[in-house]
Amino acid sequence: MKIMVLNAGSSSLKFKLFNKQDLSVLASGVIEKIGEPQSHARVEYIDGSGEELSEEVYQSMPDHRSAVRLMEKLFREKEILGHVNELAGIGHRVVHGGESFHEPVLINDEILHAIKELVPLAPLHNPANITGIEAAMERTPDIPQVAVFDTAFHQSIPEHAYLYALPYHLYEEQKVRRYGFHGTSHSYVSKMAAEYLNLPYNELKFISLHLGNGASAAAIDRGRCVDTSMGLTPLEGLVMGTRSGDLDPAILFYLARETGMDIQELDNLLNKESGLKGICGNNDMRSIGRMADTGDSHAQLAIEIFCYRIKKYVGAYLAALSGADCLIFTGGIGENDIRVREKCLAGLDTLGVALDSQKNSNRKDGIMEIQKEGGSCKILVVPTDEEFEIASQTLKLLR
Amino acid sequence: MKIMVLNAGSSSLKFKLFNKQDLSVLASGVIEKIGEPQSHARVEYIDGSGEELSEEVYQSMPDHRSAVRLMEKLFREKEILGHVNELAGIGHRVVHGGESFHEPVLINDEILHAIKELVPLAPLHNPANITGIEAAMERTPDIPQVAVFDTAFHQSIPEHAYLYALPYHLYEEQKVRRYGFHGTSHSYVSKMAAEYLNLPYNELKFISLHLGNGASAAAIDRGRCVDTSMGLTPLEGLVMGTRSGDLDPAILFYLARETGMDIQELDNLLNKESGLKGICGNNDMRSIGRMADTGDSHAQLAIEIFCYRIKKYVGAYLAALSGADCLIFTGGIGENDIRVREKCLAGLDTLGVALDSQKNSNRKDGIMEIQKEGGSCKILVVPTDEEFEIASQTLKLLR
Repeated sequence: MKIMVLNAGSSSLKFKLFNKQDLSVLASGVIEKIGEPQSHARVEYIDGSGEELSEEVYQSMPDHRSAVRLMEKLFREKEILGHVNELAGIGHRVVHGGESFHEPVLINDEILHAIKELVPLAPLHNPANITGIEAAMERTPDIPQVAVFDTAFHQSIPEHAYLYALPYHLYEEQKVRRYGFHGTSHSYVSKMAAEYLNLPYNELKFISLHLGNGASAAAIDRGRCVDTSMGLTPLEGLVMGTRSGDLDPAILFYLARETGMDIQELDNLLNKESGLKGICGNNDMRSIGRMADTGDSHAQLAIEIFCYRIKKYVGAYLAALSGADCLIFTGGIGENDIRVREKCLAGLDTLGVALDSQKNSNRKDGIMEIQKEGGSCKILVVPTDEEFEIASQTLKLLR
Repeated sequence: MKIMVLNAGSSSLKFKLFNKQDLSVLASGVIEKIGEPQSHARVEYIDGSGEELSEEVYQSMPDHRSAVRLMEKLFREKEILGHVNELAGIGHRVVHGGESFHEPVLINDEILHAIKELVPLAPLHNPANITGIEAAMERTPDIPQVAVFDTAFHQSIPEHAYLYALPYHLYEEQKVRRYGFHGTSHSYVSKMAAEYLNLPYNELKFISLHLGNGASAAAIDRGRCVDTSMGLTPLEGLVMGTRSGDLDPAILFYLARETGMDIQELDNLLNKESGLKGICGNNDMRSIGRMADTGDSHAQLAIEIFCYRIKKYVGAYLAALSGADCLIFTGGIGENDIRVREKCLAGLDTLGVALDSQKNSNRKDGIMEIQKEGGSCKILVVPTDEEFEIASQTLKLLR
């Protein structure tokens, strides 16, 4: 039997197929530009003889339903999945679970309705996720479908950390509070770290830094997430590829007054034109690193601001946790950017977080341990794998 | 000779008169409800025999000019100040000095023009300050007038800490950046702390917490402020009496979409209806403390949120400074609220910030030292005195 993981975006569908036995990957791929004139599918898979193969298809796909059909067809043709009833279940990534969902859940009409009710909280993400769920349910009505929420891991955050200092009725009536995202990743890497350290998860205090195009920090206190940097939406917190992260909210009032920008334009500005891209014109940290190396002062500044903000969150969470046992870097930048890791933790030796520059400069697959000899806080680089975690949580629920 | 300090608000004028010799206070007072039908003046002063007296006057004052005239008249009648030419200078509190002013400055037409140009950055405060300056200049054209800026102390903050992750042109063209406020207070209490510790100011690392109806934190690294929690405006950072402090800026987009609030209403919401008042309906920490003691859960929550946010800033600044030598509490709440101080620092022993509960429970005038025996970071309660600092800076400039 097999487990499928689906992650539906507004115009994309990512998929990954796992062997139910050992959760090894059988195939993965993405269908992009759904609804556009020329859609594009790519699938990578392992054939009967164990060889890694890939296939690309350019074909018009008007909607997610046709994308799911194409995926099925590719799977059949390549003998990856003979028939959908070989699937033990499908795990769907759902961005926003609000306060309703603390853990993965088997999808039925009632659950689907509840996910739809959360659309106002995630107007870009949840509708896309729902499209994926509905397309999959229509094609495979007899296969259990599981929703795994990006917010669920953060539902243990206590009231004093999730409430904003706003009129309380905005929480009661409009559900304005910190939810946090990247929960699947923070959960996965912290559990992997505990396993690597060979220590009980429920006895460790973690600071987890997921640094990718989106970026967030989480404070995990002996098994429970107690704070995270993203908020009502993924805009708050660290500097990101195109998102501003934290700023004085009155900047919006000032810009409206001084430039005449309206709320929609301000939304676009902060979510699409800010962050690293705003500072230096580029939102890819690898390119920014190369620009900085050639003396581009804006690129250098972007790296400084990005890292300084992370350092402040590390300090804030050391305070929130009363010290940490383990700090984790993950995500595209966290796993690969030696300079960023170095700058984020520079000068934190006095707080017990001491990076070993030599170890930090190594590159290897799997988990890397990079604190100084005798450092009280372990520092790990842990490759994240959200699809694996979704498959694993789906499987756990089905059992 | 004497030094006068003036702090003009939109409908108020606070004043304090110092002996130039030793900067002892000769008189202080406030004129309120300027421009309203029934204005009100109160002056406290020391008469010739050393007795402390006070006087209240109810009288219509249409503008700041008439308020300055009333102040003069009261001073003459009470023989506090026989003639304005006994004044060596007048120090004016000015809220926003933008990037133009790093230190106090003698006011002339050019300077006044520059302060006026900063009005868009502080549309509520700078116009009021300007009204006070103009009224004083008109009445005492021959007395040197000095502007002391609330932002000046923070002008040493480095680029990576004062820039937001926004399109860079918004900094260049619209001057969007972190400025910080309460600079006069942070500067004063940190210098007083160094004096108390009998250590050189330029060799110490401070975290200064000014906690009043407005609240801000500052990180001071060997003589230079390197970060502060307030930003472009005084809205950012800690939870305040009626201001939200930090939040996900996308909350504004969400509320606009879901409730139809416009930018002006959102501005009012975050600046006037949020903070402690938003959470529990009251913005006075003394009342909130009493409410919490009688079991009011919203008041308890307000205190928890207020203190947790401060704790996170303490951690962030410990990281930014690579550890601190001294943490300072000041402002109405910081100087008086035993419970708040306790909660803010609970659990920070592991980071070297160890409060002694017994010492923290003492009340005394002047500076109080409240860290645990042998704690590596000194913890001081330092009463702030912004007027004294303005008088002192004015005097220094005149010399």
